[in-house]
Amino acid sequence: MTKFDEATQAIRVDENTYDVCLDPGYSIGGPLNGGYLMAALLRAVVDASPHEHPVSTAAQFLRVPAPGPARVRLEQLKAGRTAAMTRATLIQDDTAYIEALVTTATLGDGATDWAGEPPVAMPPVEQCLALPEPKPESNMTFSTQLELRFDPPTVGWLAGKPTGRPESRAYFRMSEPQDPDPFVLALAVDALPPVVFSAGARGWAPTVELTWHLRALPAPGWLTLLGQGRLIRDGWFDEEVEVWDSAGNLVAQSRQLARLGRG
Amino acid sequence: MTKFDEATQAIRVDENTYDVCLDPGYSIGGPLNGGYLMAALLRAVVDASPHEHPVSTAAQFLRVPAPGPARVRLEQLKAGRTAAMTRATLIQDDTAYIEALVTTATLGDGATDWAGEPPVAMPPVEQCLALPEPKPESNMTFSTQLELRFDPPTVGWLAGKPTGRPESRAYFRMSEPQDPDPFVLALAVDALPPVVFSAGARGWAPTVELTWHLRALPAPGWLTLLGQGRLIRDGWFDEEVEVWDSAGNLVAQSRQLARLGRG
Repeated sequence: MTKFDEATQAIRVDENTYDVCLDPGYSIGGPLNGGYLMAALLRAVVDASPHEHPVSTAAQFLRVPAPGPARVRLEQLKAGRTAAMTRATLIQDDTAYIEALVTTATLGDGATDWAGEPPVAMPPVEQCLALPEPKPESNMTFSTQLELRFDPPTVGWLAGKPTGRPESRAYFRMSEPQDPDPFVLALAVDALPPVVFSAGARGWAPTVELTWHLRALPAPGWLTLLGQGRLIRDGWFDEEVEVWDSAGNLVAQSRQLARLGRG
Repeated sequence: MTKFDEATQAIRVDENTYDVCLDPGYSIGGPLNGGYLMAALLRAVVDASPHEHPVSTAAQFLRVPAPGPARVRLEQLKAGRTAAMTRATLIQDDTAYIEALVTTATLGDGATDWAGEPPVAMPPVEQCLALPEPKPESNMTFSTQLELRFDPPTVGWLAGKPTGRPESRAYFRMSEPQDPDPFVLALAVDALPPVVFSAGARGWAPTVELTWHLRALPAPGWLTLLGQGRLIRDGWFDEEVEVWDSAGNLVAQSRQLARLGRG
């Protein structure tokens, strides 16, 4: 069991209740990373499901939970032969922090009938950049959990040279060696710095809603995260991330709607 | 009040309960169109919200409701200053048919900080094609509610010439003159024939999950629907639709995960 597996562990209390312990090691300057929270919640959903994989997750981020004990409450909405549907709520102090609708199914080695190409070609990983280590006082413990290697222009904002468009692209793997699985993908779809940094914005950009779909089980090795936005307007922006595995397959797709930071 | 406004009307029973009457005029060969069902559900959510617009809707389609009376049950998850979050369930015969998480907010004339371009240029509406009228026995009443004018290659499948990739593009407006509003957009994001028809698939393609975001209030006139998919695999496919208004603004974005038809 890796540290990530342990940090996302969901212990069954009864068929619709699981205990989780939110790990301070996934903090983004205080708030815990949304992908980490989804991964913990999905452990409970999958454990209680007749199916193996979380193929679709739509999460609303209501409030910012604190590290420490929390509970996942499930409501089984439908258990079908192909797919099951579950509502899952992350609860702390009797208050809902995340509300999610999850479809589980069992993905197989099914045929690919049609596949698109990656929208952008990435340079080789050796030509990509790691971000500087955050200062301890910034409480960015999240960044120690994973390795990101960025397509250089998309982190130009660090040196005061944003590309001028919402985009962020990086190779991704866990710091502690671990083959990617659906829970790692839940983390991956929310692991990039907000795409709006590349368009000149700053500050914490709270996710309001994030929906992601698991499209195939990932091969071992680096994942590639291709992130972009389509519109920054009226304080809102969208962020789409495609996750490709080392075998060249699209394994996850996400879109989140978030608020521009005021920082 | 237009026929569409009437068909999506939600009558308040109490603060968390609304009655709707599902109209047989939105049938796709029997099942009612998912966008129509979302529009009815959103009427209830918006009526009960302190905010004016459904900015984010994530819906799981659990079962196929029948035309006739139904109920929308709301649970208020959060009422914030910027946004409110609501869970909404469409119920018939004490059974949940659609479960949705909705964020409402009030969109203003806020500044556009950055906007992408449409991914594909459409030919002028005069060069686009209407689909042939469906046979009465097909029970495709939905198609009488709206006018679609298709980018010709994306309906080549009708003449046995699919483009070979999942795509569908059309101009859209209601048959009964009506300026587009957020409820019309809920219909618009699910109004195209499944994008997989253009990749050679056939048959009813049930939506499992659909998330869409309202990004701006649409200008009067034709809407442009740009639909595509990224992967058809293992019986599942994704469909992304961007809705652009007549003033050239991106007004809605959706993605659905659906099952391939067996037809």
